[in-house]
Amino acid sequence: MEFYETIKTRRSSRGYLPDKPVPEKALTRIAEAIDLAPSACNRQPVKFLFVRNPELRAKICEVYQPAWLKEAPVIAVVLGCDEKAWHRLEGDSIVPVDAAIAMEHFMLAAAAEGLGTCWICAFRRDEMDKVLGLTGSPWRSVAISPLGYAKAGAVGPLSRKNVHEIVQVID
Amino acid sequence: MEFYETIKTRRSSRGYLPDKPVPEKALTRIAEAIDLAPSACNRQPVKFLFVRNPELRAKICEVYQPAWLKEAPVIAVVLGCDEKAWHRLEGDSIVPVDAAIAMEHFMLAAAAEGLGTCWICAFRRDEMDKVLGLTGSPWRSVAISPLGYAKAGAVGPLSRKNVHEIVQVID
Repeated sequence: MEFYETIKTRRSSRGYLPDKPVPEKALTRIAEAIDLAPSACNRQPVKFLFVRNPELRAKICEVYQPAWLKEAPVIAVVLGCDEKAWHRLEGDSIVPVDAAIAMEHFMLAAAAEGLGTCWICAFRRDEMDKVLGLTGSPWRSVAISPLGYAKAGAVGPLSRKNVHEIVQVID
Repeated sequence: MEFYETIKTRRSSRGYLPDKPVPEKALTRIAEAIDLAPSACNRQPVKFLFVRNPELRAKICEVYQPAWLKEAPVIAVVLGCDEKAWHRLEGDSIVPVDAAIAMEHFMLAAAAEGLGTCWICAFRRDEMDKVLGLTGSPWRSVAISPLGYAKAGAVGPLSRKNVHEIVQVID
């Protein structure tokens, strides 16, 4: 799919066809797109879990409860590791930036494959880490997303600020 | 440009043709790609400055000093505003995530236009905010990037972890 079409196609889908699986080849291409995401000092302090296992998906859906997440045949989780990450000169870990770049590569690649996704950060990270078996590990959940074919009507109207509110040219 | 080709084309360019300006139409399309970036609760707590002004570019290059930044005809700056941003349930501002998503849309759109970029976060944010006139404002610099046509040899070899170190399918 053409690049600008891909970024227009990527929308937050809140409804999925539970019985239509994600093709293996699409998963492979999406994974390669994630791996190409840039990261500070090329450290790649991120991991992705593509959770198809029904029991683990059910546990994730207890931590983030909207019904449409349960419909998705795959739940993607992006993890970050502060110990592996570059840190800003002021000391902050760059994990939120590196994880976000990789997650957006995931989202855009999914859109290019005709698949729906939705950025989700509104969960208790400790609870998510616990169901993922990460308690005591240096890896922490940063964001999750459903992955699957979107139901008709799963996407709301597009609303954005006027581009001139966002971007300013300084001559 | 095709999506997967675009993410392969996006590389960190550390050398620019200073006398070859960025076409206005390319800037317009890149700005629209930025505006389409998703953000938590669609708040869009980010702004981009496309700095062409030579005096301001020179000041930015005093804060981040590698010589190749001076060659770029445009320096892009992404700003974030914690006051406008959604916050995680634990209290952290989502600005680093929202700014990173928007900046990666910028990078990929630039690649689709045949332009070079390079993620830069290794600067003192207070110093950058000062030269940008942001001291005392709720807006803060998050990252910067050159934007322009890359010189031959400006891109190093591609090195990434094996995709199986990054992505795991859980059945």
